[in-house]
Parts: sequence; C-alpha cells; structure tokens
Amino acid sequence: MNLDNQSTERHQRLSRAAAQRLSLYLRCVGRWPSGEDTISSGQIAEAVGVSDAQVRRDLAALGHLGQRGVGYDPRELAQAIRTALGIDRQWRAVLVGVGNLGRALLKYQGFRAQGFEIVGLFDSDPAKLDQEIEGLRVEPVEHLTARTAALQAELAVLTVPADTAQAVAESLVAAGIRGILNFAPVVLKLPRQVRLVTVDLAIQLEQLAFQVQHGDFRPPEDD
Amino acid sequence: MNLDNQSTERHQRLSRAAAQRLSLYLRCVGRWPSGEDTISSGQIAEAVGVSDAQVRRDLAALGHLGQRGVGYDPRELAQAIRTALGIDRQWRAVLVGVGNLGRALLKYQGFRAQGFEIVGLFDSDPAKLDQEIEGLRVEPVEHLTARTAALQAELAVLTVPADTAQAVAESLVAAGIRGILNFAPVVLKLPRQVRLVTVDLAIQLEQLAFQVQHGDFRPPEDD
Repeated sequence: MNLDNQSTERHQRLSRAAAQRLSLYLRCVGRWPSGEDTISSGQIAEAVGVSDAQVRRDLAALGHLGQRGVGYDPRELAQAIRTALGIDRQWRAVLVGVGNLGRALLKYQGFRAQGFEIVGLFDSDPAKLDQEIEGLRVEPVEHLTARTAALQAELAVLTVPADTAQAVAESLVAAGIRGILNFAPVVLKLPRQVRLVTVDLAIQLEQLAFQVQHGDFRPPEDD
Repeated sequence: MNLDNQSTERHQRLSRAAAQRLSLYLRCVGRWPSGEDTISSGQIAEAVGVSDAQVRRDLAALGHLGQRGVGYDPRELAQAIRTALGIDRQWRAVLVGVGNLGRALLKYQGFRAQGFEIVGLFDSDPAKLDQEIEGLRVEPVEHLTARTAALQAELAVLTVPADTAQAVAESLVAAGIRGILNFAPVVLKLPRQVRLVTVDLAIQLEQLAFQVQHGDFRPPEDD
C-alpha cells in the first residue's frame, strides 16, 4: 500500500471495493421515496444485492449514522456517502471524442445528477467542429491543453480510438488534469499523480462470459 | 463463497479480480508484435501496470506455461487465458436499446474480436424499427422473448432507460438468457442462475473522483 500523505486515517480504511459499494448504496438511497423518513440497512442490502452485515459494516465506517432499530435518515446518509466518496462538491470535466459513445455520455443524466459537469468538448474530426451538443460547441483537439487549463477542468472523459488515446492523455496531463475516465481499449501510461479509471467494454463482456461459464455466484463482498 | 457445482477446482481458485487481470493480460498479449516469439511476465506487468510477481502468480494458476528465463509463447498464452475465462468459443448476444450507447457498442470492434457476436437488435421506438445497423435489422421489443430464443442468444446487452430495464430483463430471462451486461443505472433483480454485470457510468466517474480526492495509488492487486 502506497497512499497519498493527504489521505486521512478514515479514508485509508476505505478500499476500492468498499467505495464501489458506497456508490451503489448512494444510488439506492437517492431513489428512496421522498415520503419515507428512514431506510434500513436491510432495505439497502436487498436493493443492492449484498448482505445486511456488509451494509452495516460499510456504513459504520462512515461515522455515527442511524439509530439501532430505527434505520438511517436517507438525506443524512446520502450526504455522508457523498462526503466519503469526495463527491460532495462539483467536478468539472472535459470530454474528448464526440462519437456515438461520447454523445451517449453527454446525454447521460447521471453525470450531472452526481455533481459532474462536462464543460468542454473536443474532437479531431473537422466535420464535427463547431457542432453544438447539449449546449457545448465542439473544439479542435489541438486546443485541448490550453482550453482544458482555461476551463479549470480537473477530470477528463476519453472516448477516442485506441491509437490516439495515449497522445490525447498526454495533452490532458500537460493541462494539469487530475483524473481520466478512459473508454479506449488500451492501458494508458500516466504520471503517478494522475488517476485513471479504464472502462474496457469488451472486458466487461468477457467477465460476464466468465461468470456464465463458471457459475460464479459470489456477491461483491470483500470484508 | 457459494460456487456452482459445475465449477472445476481450478476455476474455483480464479477470483473475479484475477479474471479481470487475465482480461488485461489478454489485451496486452493479443497486441504483441507478431514477429516476437516470446513475451515475459515483466513485459506484461509493465504494460498492464501490476507487479511482475502478480503476473507470474496469475499465469502459474493456468497450468504449465512458459519457460523460466525464456518467457511465454504469446499464442499459447492467449489461448490458455481464453480457456480460463471461457471465451475460447463464440458467444451469441442480443442488444436491446439502439440509442447512442447501443450504436457505439455495435460499432465497437472489440466485441467481435473477442468472440462475441451481436445477432439481434431490439428497440421500443417505432421510428427505429426496420433500420439496418451494422447489417442487422432493428426488431420490436415485443418480439424479444421469442426472437432471443429463436436466435439462440446466450447473452444480452441492455442499453435501455433505467425505468424499462427490469421489464426488458424479465423478457430476456423468459427467453432463457444466461447473462446480461447492463448499462442502465439500476440494480436488476434476476433469478440466481442468470449472471449480471452492470456498468454504471456515473459510478465509474464517482470512483475516479474518489481516487483523485483521496490519492489512492494502489494497483489492482489482491493476492
């Protein structure tokens, strides 16, 4: 383990698997009917598909929340999870590569709802320049470094072909980007301080085939 | 742990995390220059971003491969990984929801390269019916159960809105589908024998923000 010095004791205890479960709990709590005053660990466990004990352990790590036998206040719980995940603030992001996948992500309401705002669009195809999509004008990828810095974007979403992804990532690093969500099926080489989450869609389908083939019934628990 | 009786001893030892790493190794090995006769664990480790020791442990679990000090035959290694993951065969899949994301997935070459063939397209929008995309005609979602069974599809890719995903999934279950790759931001309830991989794009962005916020430098190792 090799954690950043800025990490607090509490966040050092939060594993990536736990962070992923918290994201799922947040999705469930966020959709809880507004008339309901409480939500129980059992209700979250049922909705998300992990054990009640796992939910209670994960939420106990966030501090003193909820009352035994009563449950959690959905609003208080959502706020505590957002704080733990670091999404109790706005994040500005640029999107590079305005093909079908890029457009799908732009139209995806979930990003904005969770505090992520796409503030710039870039593409290398001259035919796409100056198109307006979801209120943003597509800009040339040659301007990526200067514009990303000017837009004060901290995150980038990469939906470019595999053979250009590394060069685009380096332009983003030069702009001071802090994290990249990469959809290109390639392993990007980035400086250690720039975080990377890669979503390789073929790998997701391979993992599904693996589970079908081998009958993997395990729930996503690790503790 | 609660594994299917059909799982072999070897596959019981392959965790989901290990299966994900094998997918990454396969991507690396598959792109290895065809003139090169060998690939070393160190070269795979460097390309994928995990430790050499982790690669050697993962590959040792596949059986007797490679020679000490010489390395692995890339073709033999790729075949061994495909066998371990259960993708040394063709998988037939249907795709439901022909919006931007569905179209992006259809055009994505990685699926076919890894043995996944999309054999049917379905949508509920009358305006999309009978459109031809990548050689396939869009069919009405009302025919989903009958057509999926007739097409002998084992897997389904769901790119429909969250509020219709559960109903569509149930139509697929009725058709005898074995696994669903779900992009709708909702937790589907499926019978235990049907496998599910959900790719929630907002969750991926949340996980990136979490890593940026908390300086999580850990590589994806678990052993």
